[in-house]
Amino acid sequence: MKKIYVNELENYLEQEITFSAFIDVIRDKKWVQFIILKDSTGKVQATVEKSVEENKEMVELVSSLTKDSVVEIEGKLVKNDAVKLGGMEIIPKSIKVLSKAEELPFDYNNTEGVSIDTRLNHRFLDLRNQKNLLMFKVQTCLVNAMREFVIKNNFIEIHTPKIIGTASESGSEVFKLDYFNRDAYLAQSPQFYKQMAMCSGFDRVFEIAPAFRAENSNSYRHATDFTSFDLEMSYLENLDELMDFEEDLLINALSAVKEKYQEEIKELFGIEINIPTKPFPRMKLEDLYKELEKEYNFKMDFEDIGDMNAESEKLAYKYIKEKYGHEFVFITDFSAKKRAFYHKRNSGIPMGADLIWKGCEITTLAIRENRYEILKQQAKEKGLTEDVKFYLEFFKYGAPPHGGFGLGIDRLTMLLLETSSLKETMFLFRGPNRLEP
Amino acid sequence: MKKIYVNELENYLEQEITFSAFIDVIRDKKWVQFIILKDSTGKVQATVEKSVEENKEMVELVSSLTKDSVVEIEGKLVKNDAVKLGGMEIIPKSIKVLSKAEELPFDYNNTEGVSIDTRLNHRFLDLRNQKNLLMFKVQTCLVNAMREFVIKNNFIEIHTPKIIGTASESGSEVFKLDYFNRDAYLAQSPQFYKQMAMCSGFDRVFEIAPAFRAENSNSYRHATDFTSFDLEMSYLENLDELMDFEEDLLINALSAVKEKYQEEIKELFGIEINIPTKPFPRMKLEDLYKELEKEYNFKMDFEDIGDMNAESEKLAYKYIKEKYGHEFVFITDFSAKKRAFYHKRNSGIPMGADLIWKGCEITTLAIRENRYEILKQQAKEKGLTEDVKFYLEFFKYGAPPHGGFGLGIDRLTMLLLETSSLKETMFLFRGPNRLEP
Repeated sequence: MKKIYVNELENYLEQEITFSAFIDVIRDKKWVQFIILKDSTGKVQATVEKSVEENKEMVELVSSLTKDSVVEIEGKLVKNDAVKLGGMEIIPKSIKVLSKAEELPFDYNNTEGVSIDTRLNHRFLDLRNQKNLLMFKVQTCLVNAMREFVIKNNFIEIHTPKIIGTASESGSEVFKLDYFNRDAYLAQSPQFYKQMAMCSGFDRVFEIAPAFRAENSNSYRHATDFTSFDLEMSYLENLDELMDFEEDLLINALSAVKEKYQEEIKELFGIEINIPTKPFPRMKLEDLYKELEKEYNFKMDFEDIGDMNAESEKLAYKYIKEKYGHEFVFITDFSAKKRAFYHKRNSGIPMGADLIWKGCEITTLAIRENRYEILKQQAKEKGLTEDVKFYLEFFKYGAPPHGGFGLGIDRLTMLLLETSSLKETMFLFRGPNRLEP
Repeated sequence: MKKIYVNELENYLEQEITFSAFIDVIRDKKWVQFIILKDSTGKVQATVEKSVEENKEMVELVSSLTKDSVVEIEGKLVKNDAVKLGGMEIIPKSIKVLSKAEELPFDYNNTEGVSIDTRLNHRFLDLRNQKNLLMFKVQTCLVNAMREFVIKNNFIEIHTPKIIGTASESGSEVFKLDYFNRDAYLAQSPQFYKQMAMCSGFDRVFEIAPAFRAENSNSYRHATDFTSFDLEMSYLENLDELMDFEEDLLINALSAVKEKYQEEIKELFGIEINIPTKPFPRMKLEDLYKELEKEYNFKMDFEDIGDMNAESEKLAYKYIKEKYGHEFVFITDFSAKKRAFYHKRNSGIPMGADLIWKGCEITTLAIRENRYEILKQQAKEKGLTEDVKFYLEFFKYGAPPHGGFGLGIDRLTMLLLETSSLKETMFLFRGPNRLEP
């Protein structure tokens, strides 16, 4: 028998139904037992009258039921305007326990005073909190809108290998594994491979897949195993075109979420989703430095000059919010020293940008160097030779100009719903001290 | 300037355009030079008249051009019915070389006599073959149709960790890695975590992500790093409901591909896509054994009794094709000894099935054991205790009945287009002897 969901119940009014769900709450009153049942679409009440002779066994069963057990109820669904939950209730004829819950180690609906580690150790319970369920519905909607947008724009979906033969990009933050008695590594990003697709003439590709970073960091916005949305497109001539594209992508995705979930998000998270206007503010790094010094007396640490850091990202947001009433800002013109060797340069300045949302970097975009000799030279300057040899090969036999970016979808969800860290946002967080469950 | 694609050119007839693309072929004739240009949407011709005085420099440039270089042409797009490619041609005013190609190590359009290893070493060139480009367009369409189908059916998308703390399921075929000075492992499947989502009350989830198997096998249908489409749904009562769902999922996906790409697939692969009829044939393993013995004198190897193997899968297809004219068959009633501990059993028989398409297993489906004590017992029988402890926890606090399956999308694409192996099908194949590029 097909499961009837709570949000379908109104189609079954005044009918005999079989309804299965988790028990949210049991209220055992003097004359009546109320069982609030929940599934992923909502809640409904079942009502057992104690005085009814035939209910005797059932009343005993309900008395022994525990919160979060899963039950199957056969009964009649009736209209009852007095019931707050949807103006209906189930009058059970029989109740079957499908799975009896032990006493919960903590109340997932009220986790004040419960440590984040306790919650993560029991993440399967923590996720029962309705905010968490909504978070994953929202992420599904957000990511799917992004995907639909690029597919509509003729992007091809690729799935690049996550086990790689060389510790490319930067060897220090890469996980090493044993691969049939030789060393292999986990991909930090699909960067080289999505560029390979450009050299294969795929023109436009995207991928949504895990990326792995062996960073021994406990910041709120880093995880060792996270999901990245990456895209790459050929025949881009300048960075503006790429920034325009990302604006459209994000506006489309945020609009989809707002349309479907604004009300619930407002109710559970207290957040209003602002659809950003086009174009997003765009600032050169140097100009930003000047403004931040002027406005907030901020001076970039010497070792970070030419780059952004966490504090400047926060202040950049503050500044843009105050000045333009915007949540997003593209920062351009970083120092070549601080950027990857594969960014194309214009008079020595990388043709790239960081996109900052609500004070946190969400994307690095760049036009790529597609000319073999220059690319090789730029790699050499960064001390990369052997490890990028296979990658440089891609550019020897015809390589169109191209560019692209990556977006961490966990981080995006965290910022959208303003949760405190990726630990709260990810299905199962992974960090230096967190590998379970 | 936005790239104009070949399939958009007809909107620019009799206009001056800038057009960038790879060079497919150069035909340097006595009086004229033909350059065939290609992008991911098709081909177009550019024609340079040698006798035109202003063309002198350009004619020299074209003479020096190499196949697969990338050029940007400014010129007029004109109608010319004599041109086979779309009845139009570009008359260039200038040609700029964006990337000059060295001589190709092999002809990717004719790889007869080229070893698969040479092709895989230069997969970025091999993928330029138009069959390969089409293959990834088809896979994009196929997978997206599957995704749209489940999202329409209210599935939540999850992203489960790929780095795990215990070598669950079967320790022997798992990759081990160094995780901040402790051992960690790569997930062989999201099995435990998608079931966790059921215990979290998510009701319906799916994931498309890499799965890792340290199998030292060189078969045509195994890879160490492949992409798996997994789903799980709660409140299933029987296997038939799950098989019905998978039938709908596949029929929907194959129909989407047929509608969009049947013509091109026919032209390049010579394949007719057959949309299967419902229900797919369903057979008990024991009955299949009997039929295969009667029809083909086949006897299952002793050690495989209760299970399928490669040969029986091939014969099952042959039998079903001959008897029912169907390409798919569900085989049910495997031996509990041959199935995972988490399959629910009915009178000792696992409530699961394998789905075979064109002689190759594509899915294992099963209803899961959701009762803690029985699940624990079944794990113990298979010798699993410590490694599944965290997983068993999921079932202590209320666990709805549920079931699901996984589909390898590379294998699915391989069978759809009848390529000879995953090496031909995957963007970048990974096997025991293949870790590059």
